[in-house]
Amino acid sequence: MTHTETIDRNTIEEKSDRTLHDLIFARYRQPVETGTVALNPVLEAILSHRSVRDYLPTPLPQGALETIVAAAQSASTSSNLQAWSVVAVKDPDRRARLAALSGHQRQIVQAPLFLVWLADLSRLRAIAKGLDRTSEGLDYIETFLLAVIDATLAAQNAVVALESLGLGSCYIGGIRNQPEAVAAELRLPPETIAIFGLTVGYPDPDKPAEIKPRLSQNIVLHHELYGEEHPAAPLDLYNATLRIFQAEQNLSPIDWTDQATSRISTADALKGRQLLTDVIRALGFALK
Amino acid sequence: MTHTETIDRNTIEEKSDRTLHDLIFARYRQPVETGTVALNPVLEAILSHRSVRDYLPTPLPQGALETIVAAAQSASTSSNLQAWSVVAVKDPDRRARLAALSGHQRQIVQAPLFLVWLADLSRLRAIAKGLDRTSEGLDYIETFLLAVIDATLAAQNAVVALESLGLGSCYIGGIRNQPEAVAAELRLPPETIAIFGLTVGYPDPDKPAEIKPRLSQNIVLHHELYGEEHPAAPLDLYNATLRIFQAEQNLSPIDWTDQATSRISTADALKGRQLLTDVIRALGFALK
Repeated sequence: MTHTETIDRNTIEEKSDRTLHDLIFARYRQPVETGTVALNPVLEAILSHRSVRDYLPTPLPQGALETIVAAAQSASTSSNLQAWSVVAVKDPDRRARLAALSGHQRQIVQAPLFLVWLADLSRLRAIAKGLDRTSEGLDYIETFLLAVIDATLAAQNAVVALESLGLGSCYIGGIRNQPEAVAAELRLPPETIAIFGLTVGYPDPDKPAEIKPRLSQNIVLHHELYGEEHPAAPLDLYNATLRIFQAEQNLSPIDWTDQATSRISTADALKGRQLLTDVIRALGFALK
Repeated sequence: MTHTETIDRNTIEEKSDRTLHDLIFARYRQPVETGTVALNPVLEAILSHRSVRDYLPTPLPQGALETIVAAAQSASTSSNLQAWSVVAVKDPDRRARLAALSGHQRQIVQAPLFLVWLADLSRLRAIAKGLDRTSEGLDYIETFLLAVIDATLAAQNAVVALESLGLGSCYIGGIRNQPEAVAAELRLPPETIAIFGLTVGYPDPDKPAEIKPRLSQNIVLHHELYGEEHPAAPLDLYNATLRIFQAEQNLSPIDWTDQATSRISTADALKGRQLLTDVIRALGFALK
């Protein structure tokens, strides 16, 4: 657990020496048995992911946004309903206003592009109305979740795609702090809601982000049955692993179990999002 | 719109001739302006996605599941809460029972691996209890959605990763038809719910799946503001595009607007999922 190896992404040359073992080790700070599976460029891209919070002002090249959205649309979508949309915000003033609505996260102002991902049932409602048909199915939490899942599948494809172009990104859950104000800012129709934002831009090479270690695989992966309990030992190990990461990153030392439980300790810790049920309804979703 | 080009994935050699333009054209059946963006192996993998519903019985190679889950855990997770888990089901009898609970979808029985993705707040609840702390934040729809989003980001990384290993997959939303029975089958603790399944295996080369065309990019991508309306012309174009795809695939011809609105026309069309709010609560989520 004292392994302090870091993965340098600065050049393709340096990356090309990495093995699957190396990249998985960086993700867990412990080995995982991967048999004879060989590294390929797709695995390398996915396993190297880190969220980027420091960007250069350089705009995206022509066609990059369109390519990223094509990747997003290539994700699966439930029954091909395609119940999502995305708003690409470049205007600095609008980004500043959205940053103020999302917990004042600096990277929304700094990154040249902010993508706002929408669960969108408005399109299906309009189509049904246009055909003079009922659309009661849209009134249920099931269909709301379907739209959230569709939007999330799409967004993650976008993230993997944009990283392959040398860009970086960071999801912004803070967009759910004040979804009604966000809807007004983006002129969203009823039955659409911003479920997360995504800052996009070229990472600042002077402030590189590192791969954040995750929970041991045996904590999240179950075989056949979930199992009975949440054993303490792997969590202690993860706390120790993250403390090493925090020291490397000059972050304040804190156990993950402390940090995570603080985040969900009270309604107020949700930063306004404890009101989300009412807000989703106010935005036109019946949530039956 | 009469372009009937198909993308053959059988060999790397054949794929290597494809350009970014070709792959994006296959996705939309119309060109998208991608400027000077160049194709790379990651974009090629993502843009080539198709859902696989016909599998060989060949099991996954040793280490493939672990690699796929490492990819899943490499996705972003809100506040690093990692509020998801996955159950890997190989047992044929259990897969048959889960297929029966999920709309009798044949591919769950046929594919050698079925991954059940869980929104999981049970782990955080147990950790908070162990530390004798409050965890009221888990009682809100916000945190339930956070878990759904975490699980979905992870699953989509898994899909892209497994495709890079020559495997195929298909999301199974039908797992939400009877989530309580699924929870009993997998011995899920309270505050976990299966949000979708994923069949995984080697695609049957005798029944190749094709890239399904999606809505024109200008329907889902908005610039700065969402805009006022849902114009009919691009939907007519998409109906015509899908009819060509249906003819190629020997599927019954139907307009997408017909198909999509039928899917959401009534509560009964949701196949049991119209009861999902009560079911989520019965599984222990307060959904405040």
